[in-house]
Amino acid sequence: MTELLSIILAAGEGTRMKSATPKVLHPVGGLPIIGHVVRAAREAGSSKIAMVTGPKHGAIREAVSGLDADIVHFEQTVAKGTGHAAAQARALFEAHDGYIAVVYGDHPLLRGENFRAVLDRLDAGLDAAILGFEPKDPTGYGRFITEGETLRAIREHKDASEAERAIGLCNACILAFRADVFRDLIDRIDTNNAQGEYYLTDLVGLANAAGKKVGYGVAPENDVMGVNDRSQLARAEALFQEVRREDAMRAGVTLRDPPSVWFSWDTDLGRDVTIHPNVVFGPGVKVADKVEIRTFCDIEDAVIGEGATIGPFARIRGGAELGADVHLGNFVEVKKSKIGAGTKAGHLSYLGDAEIGSKTNIGAGTITCNYDGVNKDQTIIGDGVFVGSNTSLVAPVSLGNGAYTASGSVITDDVPDDAVAFGRARQVNKPGYAPKLKEKALAKKAAKGK
Amino acid sequence: MTELLSIILAAGEGTRMKSATPKVLHPVGGLPIIGHVVRAAREAGSSKIAMVTGPKHGAIREAVSGLDADIVHFEQTVAKGTGHAAAQARALFEAHDGYIAVVYGDHPLLRGENFRAVLDRLDAGLDAAILGFEPKDPTGYGRFITEGETLRAIREHKDASEAERAIGLCNACILAFRADVFRDLIDRIDTNNAQGEYYLTDLVGLANAAGKKVGYGVAPENDVMGVNDRSQLARAEALFQEVRREDAMRAGVTLRDPPSVWFSWDTDLGRDVTIHPNVVFGPGVKVADKVEIRTFCDIEDAVIGEGATIGPFARIRGGAELGADVHLGNFVEVKKSKIGAGTKAGHLSYLGDAEIGSKTNIGAGTITCNYDGVNKDQTIIGDGVFVGSNTSLVAPVSLGNGAYTASGSVITDDVPDDAVAFGRARQVNKPGYAPKLKEKALAKKAAKGK
Amino acid sequence: MTELLSIILAAGEGTRMKSATPKVLHPVGGLPIIGHVVRAAREAGSSKIAMVTGPKHGAIREAVSGLDADIVHFEQTVAKGTGHAAAQARALFEAHDGYIAVVYGDHPLLRGENFRAVLDRLDAGLDAAILGFEPKDPTGYGRFITEGETLRAIREHKDASEAERAIGLCNACILAFRADVFRDLIDRIDTNNAQGEYYLTDLVGLANAAGKKVGYGVAPENDVMGVNDRSQLARAEALFQEVRREDAMRAGVTLRDPPSVWFSWDTDLGRDVTIHPNVVFGPGVKVADKVEIRTFCDIEDAVIGEGATIGPFARIRGGAELGADVHLGNFVEVKKSKIGAGTKAGHLSYLGDAEIGSKTNIGAGTITCNYDGVNKDQTIIGDGVFVGSNTSLVAPVSLGNGAYTASGSVITDDVPDDAVAFGRARQVNKPGYAPKLKEKALAKKAAKGK
Repeated sequence: MTELLSIILAAGEGTRMKSATPKVLHPVGGLPIIGHVVRAAREAGSSKIAMVTGPKHGAIREAVSGLDADIVHFEQTVAKGTGHAAAQARALFEAHDGYIAVVYGDHPLLRGENFRAVLDRLDAGLDAAILGFEPKDPTGYGRFITEGETLRAIREHKDASEAERAIGLCNACILAFRADVFRDLIDRIDTNNAQGEYYLTDLVGLANAAGKKVGYGVAPENDVMGVNDRSQLARAEALFQEVRREDAMRAGVTLRDPPSVWFSWDTDLGRDVTIHPNVVFGPGVKVADKVEIRTFCDIEDAVIGEGATIGPFARIRGGAELGADVHLGNFVEVKKSKIGAGTKAGHLSYLGDAEIGSKTNIGAGTITCNYDGVNKDQTIIGDGVFVGSNTSLVAPVSLGNGAYTASGSVITDDVPDDAVAFGRARQVNKPGYAPKLKEKALAKKAAKGK
Repeated sequence: MTELLSIILAAGEGTRMKSATPKVLHPVGGLPIIGHVVRAAREAGSSKIAMVTGPKHGAIREAVSGLDADIVHFEQTVAKGTGHAAAQARALFEAHDGYIAVVYGDHPLLRGENFRAVLDRLDAGLDAAILGFEPKDPTGYGRFITEGETLRAIREHKDASEAERAIGLCNACILAFRADVFRDLIDRIDTNNAQGEYYLTDLVGLANAAGKKVGYGVAPENDVMGVNDRSQLARAEALFQEVRREDAMRAGVTLRDPPSVWFSWDTDLGRDVTIHPNVVFGPGVKVADKVEIRTFCDIEDAVIGEGATIGPFARIRGGAELGADVHLGNFVEVKKSKIGAGTKAGHLSYLGDAEIGSKTNIGAGTITCNYDGVNKDQTIIGDGVFVGSNTSLVAPVSLGNGAYTASGSVITDDVPDDAVAFGRARQVNKPGYAPKLKEKALAKKAAKGK
Repeated sequence: MTELLSIILAAGEGTRMKSATPKVLHPVGGLPIIGHVVRAAREAGSSKIAMVTGPKHGAIREAVSGLDADIVHFEQTVAKGTGHAAAQARALFEAHDGYIAVVYGDHPLLRGENFRAVLDRLDAGLDAAILGFEPKDPTGYGRFITEGETLRAIREHKDASEAERAIGLCNACILAFRADVFRDLIDRIDTNNAQGEYYLTDLVGLANAAGKKVGYGVAPENDVMGVNDRSQLARAEALFQEVRREDAMRAGVTLRDPPSVWFSWDTDLGRDVTIHPNVVFGPGVKVADKVEIRTFCDIEDAVIGEGATIGPFARIRGGAELGADVHLGNFVEVKKSKIGAGTKAGHLSYLGDAEIGSKTNIGAGTITCNYDGVNKDQTIIGDGVFVGSNTSLVAPVSLGNGAYTASGSVITDDVPDDAVAFGRARQVNKPGYAPKLKEKALAKKAAKGK
């Protein structure tokens, strides 16, 4: 395969987002928009990627480096158009043999095969190929001026004639070139247009004028949707989710109500998983076969073992690992904990920084007191332990195999294997005292009323 | 601007709602339908508002007085039609100079500009102007019989000929008149129609007969939808929500999944607020910039400070005030409490009637015991306090700045600044006792089985 | 009414479900698909029902027996087509007089009236009548070859000519016969077709050849949708829910956002019930009039009394019975408990295996410690009891009428009427000790850092 350099343009201001966050960092399916573009570029076989951002875009550079450390960053210090932006990556494209694809960074639904649609044209002998699409409403898009399979020019909407505006095939978001052709032409772009900017799309006319062969590929409209405001962001998210939901069902997952299940880009579900309405997956979740996730669950950064039953009203996060047949019930939070096979935590519990064995029962209202204001400490619980309801486990603390804690206990010291720990006061009844307490309360109320 | 009196008709039975609650008190976006109509009438500049209700409608009068004390109420004691209903407001319209708008009270999506569409016609010199619309299906609506810009009559569907039923322009819900014209004609309406009722719409024919100039305005269909049953109520709510969601996104709010965020009529959101799926706003919420509200939150009557992170699974209500950068986590309820900047309550807590300082940590499972069966008492917590997990704070009680409570404590007495409070029993381990407990439990089970 | 035997075919593999669970056991509206078909067959007046399943379908037989013990089961040991499957029920149809309906088991939206559409044709004198429908896309369905009102044959899609594929009326899922006609013809079906299987639909041609009168009925497309994969399962669920939501609204229930309320097949709601967004009903729920269910509730197997207010964030299950005007608030779970009129449990509580009187107050954080690792024991609470916040009730235990428990108590012994029970340690303050604790914690952190 011919070596591919992709130049991703992400220097735009994105003012219509009305956000302090750069546009391409807004997430779709839990991944920043720019991350989707990077992924698509890698899928298409890009061995090198250049990213062009603006002067205030340190946050983009940092986020992208976190996702893919091999990307080379360039800065466009003044906003002079897409042609000028692409030229910033000179250090990388000057030395490059093979193909160059320039791609806009605000296209979260882009896929590797959209790159292939134009790269295949280069493989077929063309010098350049531009990705087009047929939008339902072409207003605002650059139009493709074609002759048979040849692309003569891309006319920006603002510069287009009435007749040209009637053209349905429009510029999408990837322009691919043989590297030598790109290098020859990139500096010939001028600013003779309504906006006074360097239009990257002028490369098409320039290539034609230089006698180069220019063609085009076509992408489905959804794949190449750009995001310019929050409504489009919501629409991209919706399209992303639709695809993921269909994929999941096709793979043997039951979604009782697909529109109320939200996936992340990397959600990984086994077969015969059942997901009830209203389940949200954050990034980093892997669910084994035959797991049932009931309604109202929020799960991120977690591995869930085969046959587990989760929820309703459960929250799991922070690198949690649940073994096979674990049961987590309502109002239970598990954070950064490892829970062994067959262990149950049914009600109103917080399990943080814990390591829990198998076949252990965590009583309702159990809380790991894992934070002392400074440190997060561990709670270690063995196999076959019975943690009584409303137990406070003051970390660092450990409960041995087969240990038992009395309901309502505060456990501050380790409990040996098979020991029973009490940490609660004895009950005292005061007969006939309740009416007096009530009298006092009423008197207090009366006093307040005065 | 010419002075405007609006007469709102709300005397209908609304039997198709199948409800003990009067139709116009069913809420849309958290506000009774009638409240939306009042708001629209005020937006249109009504300096006086008359409300006509039926004999069993004390609840409407009470609710409306709560919303707008200046509204004058009239009762229609017998159901003789809309013309008769409007005439009940005589005490108000007899003395009125300027314009009179009669409006139906069951139109929750009505806006001030719908009034303007007819009032502008009066400003242009007409004597009367009626609001029309073009429904997708006109069946059941009164049809506009027009000649050019003149409205000759409104024919009720039941009384209309085949040819008249083919007319697309129909009567909406506002009839506007010069006050003198209205006064002259209102008593001339008769009951010569299929229903034997006084039709308000007969004023159109009467005005024409008297040589008055009658015209019309036109409203979008959604604005003038009436609610007659619960399906229409749900549809009105859906339309209301759609508009609010688009407004929010346009203003710089991220709604990851717009259809699963429900606003109230008065929800006020800052810029760069992010709202995850499944968030419900009750009335009275104000959210500052850069707040993140995670999935599964229910928030009403609350102010949330800049940069706060809320949820998942949080509930806030009762006049809560959260400072900047407050964090509320899962299964946390805050009621009628003030929480200072940077304070965190991450898990399974109930904070009611509390005043909490800044940079304080509320441990998992903390509960303000604010109720003694009669009184609701206050819990005062200072700055930089560490409330240990599973602490019960028995109000009235206060924790000074820098105080610390041991996990699992019951705090009944005030804790001075920088003091540590313990209120829990010491732990005792009984080695090897757990298997014996289990034997006992199994014996008990066996005994039950007999 | 002529006696009806229905033969339900459920021997298919359902491989496109990609599930270890047989296709017809996947639920729609909380009831297995096959349960809906059985219900429809009974609604249509079937006095006898035969069910034909495959050799690995013990789970189906078991589930169906649980739903309707009178169904007679037959096994098709080899997959030789629908004609062969129906023939397995010979023991039942041989002795049957009257009508026989053969129905496919994977049609969850089927209703009694769909049977009537063909049975009425038999009543009118025909010998056989087949249920048809007009799908939006007929690809894959058997086409009805008709002459006037006579059905000549059903041509399987695979065996159909181009011209026959243009026919819009297709085979649905019920074939009805006079019993004698069915008996005469069922063994004459052969395997001369593309699949080499016994096609039940060949009965139509055979009946015509034998001079019998064969007609057809027509069903709405939604009623007769079959489920073959998880997408179709989700679509069936969505259609099921749409119908239930409309039914509920028509009966006087407010659904603020209908698409986010999920019913079970047997959910029973009173008048003037208000349901906020995001409420899930599992099977077995009965809700009286004027109940309000707030957002984020999960309710199954429960009876809720008039005027109760539930949620937000409540879970009810296991045969719970709530009296009139009960209030359950957020993060409250009620399992297998009976709660008297006017009792309130507002926050963060687990009430399991409890019997609670009327006008009792359950404080925030109350937990019934109902499980000792082996037994589930009962908690009995009287009328007018005040259970203080964060009380642990260690079952078996009882609180008498008018009793009071101090906040944060562990209650292990019975509390007499009107007594106050304390079960908590006294508080001790250590003045000035908090900064020292913090120093220690910081030192520990520093030590870890090394």
